[in-house]
Amino acid sequence: MSNQRDTALKYAEGHKKRFLDELISYLRIPSVSTQPKHKEDLLKAAEWTAEAMRSAGLEHVEVIPSPVGRHPLVYADWLHAGPDAPTVLIYGHFDVQPPEPLELWDSPPFEPTVRDDYLYARGSTDDKGQAFIHIKMVESYLKTSGSIPVNVKFIYEGEEENGGVTLSAFIPENKEKLAADIALISDTGILSPTQPSLVYGLRGIHYDFIDLLGPNHDLHSGSFGGAINNPLNALGHIIAGLKDVNGRVLIPGFYDDVRELTAEERTLLNKLPIDEPTLLNMTGAPAIWGESEFTFIERLGSRPTLDVHGIIGGYTGEGGKTVLPSTAHAKISMRLVPDQDPEKIKQAFRAHVRTLVPESISVKFRDDTHGSHPIVIDYNLPAIKAAREAYAAVFENEPVLMREGGSIPVVNEFKSVLDLDTVLMGFGLPNSRVHSPNENFYLPLFERGIATAIHFIANLARTPKL
Amino acid sequence: MSNQRDTALKYAEGHKKRFLDELISYLRIPSVSTQPKHKEDLLKAAEWTAEAMRSAGLEHVEVIPSPVGRHPLVYADWLHAGPDAPTVLIYGHFDVQPPEPLELWDSPPFEPTVRDDYLYARGSTDDKGQAFIHIKMVESYLKTSGSIPVNVKFIYEGEEENGGVTLSAFIPENKEKLAADIALISDTGILSPTQPSLVYGLRGIHYDFIDLLGPNHDLHSGSFGGAINNPLNALGHIIAGLKDVNGRVLIPGFYDDVRELTAEERTLLNKLPIDEPTLLNMTGAPAIWGESEFTFIERLGSRPTLDVHGIIGGYTGEGGKTVLPSTAHAKISMRLVPDQDPEKIKQAFRAHVRTLVPESISVKFRDDTHGSHPIVIDYNLPAIKAAREAYAAVFENEPVLMREGGSIPVVNEFKSVLDLDTVLMGFGLPNSRVHSPNENFYLPLFERGIATAIHFIANLARTPKL
Repeated sequence: MSNQRDTALKYAEGHKKRFLDELISYLRIPSVSTQPKHKEDLLKAAEWTAEAMRSAGLEHVEVIPSPVGRHPLVYADWLHAGPDAPTVLIYGHFDVQPPEPLELWDSPPFEPTVRDDYLYARGSTDDKGQAFIHIKMVESYLKTSGSIPVNVKFIYEGEEENGGVTLSAFIPENKEKLAADIALISDTGILSPTQPSLVYGLRGIHYDFIDLLGPNHDLHSGSFGGAINNPLNALGHIIAGLKDVNGRVLIPGFYDDVRELTAEERTLLNKLPIDEPTLLNMTGAPAIWGESEFTFIERLGSRPTLDVHGIIGGYTGEGGKTVLPSTAHAKISMRLVPDQDPEKIKQAFRAHVRTLVPESISVKFRDDTHGSHPIVIDYNLPAIKAAREAYAAVFENEPVLMREGGSIPVVNEFKSVLDLDTVLMGFGLPNSRVHSPNENFYLPLFERGIATAIHFIANLARTPKL
Repeated sequence: MSNQRDTALKYAEGHKKRFLDELISYLRIPSVSTQPKHKEDLLKAAEWTAEAMRSAGLEHVEVIPSPVGRHPLVYADWLHAGPDAPTVLIYGHFDVQPPEPLELWDSPPFEPTVRDDYLYARGSTDDKGQAFIHIKMVESYLKTSGSIPVNVKFIYEGEEENGGVTLSAFIPENKEKLAADIALISDTGILSPTQPSLVYGLRGIHYDFIDLLGPNHDLHSGSFGGAINNPLNALGHIIAGLKDVNGRVLIPGFYDDVRELTAEERTLLNKLPIDEPTLLNMTGAPAIWGESEFTFIERLGSRPTLDVHGIIGGYTGEGGKTVLPSTAHAKISMRLVPDQDPEKIKQAFRAHVRTLVPESISVKFRDDTHGSHPIVIDYNLPAIKAAREAYAAVFENEPVLMREGGSIPVVNEFKSVLDLDTVLMGFGLPNSRVHSPNENFYLPLFERGIATAIHFIANLARTPKL
């Protein structure tokens, strides 16, 4: 076993240049799932993924068209480890966030560029780079010993950044096909290149779109201002009424289902080696902010919050224009923690917004993405132990345990529909700029990621009970 | 005199088709003064204006380059009415508001189109159409009797929609050149095609640009939301802190210098034949709104207010993006009434905004337009009487007196620097959509405008003392 693992490790080390070249060609595909103009690119990315899985030696590779007319899934497996060996379901996504604003990228988002050990491209960390790690882990085993010490199944999707509708429909219809002992996902980060960390909790989300409608056409603010309400002014009151200046959400009932952190968890989280100067340096923000009764580490992943992601309304061109705008539009999400329910939060959010909208304005809501439930995974699971040991072996440093603020909706579906716990084995960094201009992947972590995955699979094989 | 006036009226009536064709060619020039890409178009519009004045028979026509590097002025005069005849200084502007959003126009903003007696084009009412009336009034006199019963001076600018910096610099340096007995401006509206009205009050303005800066790049809201403040959320609190939901401005000291309406004025204003259903029908707003202790007519022109004209920040493309944005931008103006001072209001506004900005966000202000003072003109002036009689003769209905909510900064400068009162003789309509898509000029008012101007000039000539 150890020999099998070590030859795989050696293979990965020996082929890292080619692995990088392949990843670069993967990243050239602009697979932006929220933008309809990229629909063909999603299909292209799915086919590229399938071909990479096939080349690695995986079997039953198939591009599965979306039953709901959206983007395809890719499935593959290798099931020859024997009936007693555990089965791992590996998930990743090949779609990416929109690259806008383009002018803030130092190199174009879909022309991957290496500078100082960093690979810059949209999707480099989130999630093509990390999803590719496991395909290369499989290749490293199969091209050396001809076998993997555990059974593996792959299910990769093209809608993670756009609500995951297709996969949500697929999972309950394919329980047998996806049956496994544990799930594995690399779509999170670690604290630093020398300090690995293991995420055991994720926030959920409800994402909503608000349209405010005032007059049926733009008016001259001089002629009508003061007697006709302005949707942009009204939007200000709505936003102010959703969350106070200290970060406390004002939606009635919003905190009702929030599970308090245990004393053990608070201790564990607050031991994390991050301090305020580091966070300020990382973000460039003038000061830390948020609910003062929680430490900023707790606020980062263990507290629910509400953020406005985009506003547009009125005249936004150069110079001034004295318009009383007809409409105002905002995109707003709430990050949720256990045991908040996204559907219940959606109803509470909308009811509260309605109380904030005056009769002189009308409001419409749209939510074209599914909400996702928050989740916390038991960090004492044997599979989590196997992952910790894998990190420790490769990084020569024990990983710390933490919660992350982002959402990976599928983790919850794996649990509720397939009864699977998930190991979140991430290799992003705090400065990977996921969802932002200049997204990047620190290349030593691409290599260490593959090594950690190889170790993890070997560790799993000798774990008696997952 | 009456014969001179009537032959001029007849000439205008006989040439209305050509006058319209000329106006259409004037409106084809996209002279958007706030957008630098149109700098050449402003020069073109100035030259077109000068040529139209020359053809009408005006003398000393000159395109005057901006001494401050902005857009040119056009001056012309005709001073042969004799030493006892009064002199009228006629002002207009040949620049226009930005046409955006373009997709809401039924015909392109710079391809003038006539539909059902309405001429649709940016600048048709504000102000090329109205400015052109006075050039045609002059032509109608000079091409018939060869003289005008009063002396006239024209000063037309290309920066009215962009702060009027050039004209503000020019006036104090050219007091002699611009010396007159009364000023005349057509840049306002009347109540309806059958109900003329005369504006005797204008609101002033302070227009400000706010930039909020949070983190130095866009962040993933999942990873950082809750511990790093969001400039869009902060902007909501700022806007909500500027004006309450009932329309009362919350800036300390904002109302200190507001002169109360006299009982006579309140009576006069509230007799105006406008009712709430008309205003709702005109605007399409779901309900009337604003300070409940004032009637909506008072709110429309006699009360100061504050409006957000544009907001942009975060992700505004299609679909969702879970970004915690780096910046947020807002354009905000305050409409002012006597005796509020724009500079004092600017200081009070900025000081108040600073109190609303948390330390986790930084703020910058920009104001690239001059503020303007509010003004109220004595509606008992003989020149106002001459204008009322002119309207009554042409419309066969007495004009009502009203205040308008917009700002025409030059009215104040004429008063303070040249000691000139201004007659605001407008021909726009409430549904002219100035500053909006589908701006239009009701063509019967173009014709009646020229006739009213011809009458007014004749009336002035027999007014003993202006």
